[in-house]
Amino acid sequence: MSIGKLGDEDSLAILREGILGRLGCIASGWPYVVPVNYFFDGKDIYVHTLPGKKLDALRSNPRVCLQVDKIKDPYNWRSVIAYGTFEEISAEETRENILTRMYSRLPHMTPVESRLVEGAKGTVVFRIKVEEVTGMAEE
Amino acid sequence: MSIGKLGDEDSLAILREGILGRLGCIASGWPYVVPVNYFFDGKDIYVHTLPGKKLDALRSNPRVCLQVDKIKDPYNWRSVIAYGTFEEISAEETRENILTRMYSRLPHMTPVESRLVEGAKGTVVFRIKVEEVTGMAEE
Repeated sequence: MSIGKLGDEDSLAILREGILGRLGCIASGWPYVVPVNYFFDGKDIYVHTLPGKKLDALRSNPRVCLQVDKIKDPYNWRSVIAYGTFEEISAEETRENILTRMYSRLPHMTPVESRLVEGAKGTVVFRIKVEEVTGMAEE
Repeated sequence: MSIGKLGDEDSLAILREGILGRLGCIASGWPYVVPVNYFFDGKDIYVHTLPGKKLDALRSNPRVCLQVDKIKDPYNWRSVIAYGTFEEISAEETRENILTRMYSRLPHMTPVESRLVEGAKGTVVFRIKVEEVTGMAEE
């Protein structure tokens, strides 16, 4: 068993395959972490959220990271962090496109069902403009 | 399906039952998130780590959070955040005691096996002095 850096290709594969990550941001000078579903298009990361603490934090400090892992047990895991900048997406066409692609990857709901749910709630869609991806593994 | 705050009792139960959380800290002005195994004694949280980016970050900015969740699917989840202050533990007796309690809750390894592995690696043990716990749920 040894801990080491994960190569770029392996790190990007984890981001591409995942649907659930933990978003880290800074809220009033404190770290803040929440689970989110996301979609990575190979370049940027897309997330949808409801208004609340996470969105308030990101609007006031756009530095954000998304951590995604594959954990078999405490001594066998891979974890990736993508760092980037928060960008809210307001154009309706782009939003729809992103939500459709995101929902198509989530279990248990068809895109239409999910869209109906989200539409009623006032979902906000944002992009993490990815600047750096790093990965670690213990295997 | 609705999203709302989780009560204190339910939030503390998730912290107590969990063994895996995502630790959030601030590294050079950026949010930084890593998966960690932890132990919550009802008051504070204990974590062990190797020297590296996480420890450097915590030593220079002790504001830290631990996020723990139970996720059934994208629309059924509970997530808790404990906020607190990083405190490194140097007393050997306390360290041993904490590591033994922590390992006894991890799968796949006996405490003795785990201690042998960790002892060789130069593990650092620290406490998150918990100041606030908040929880959210969608159920």
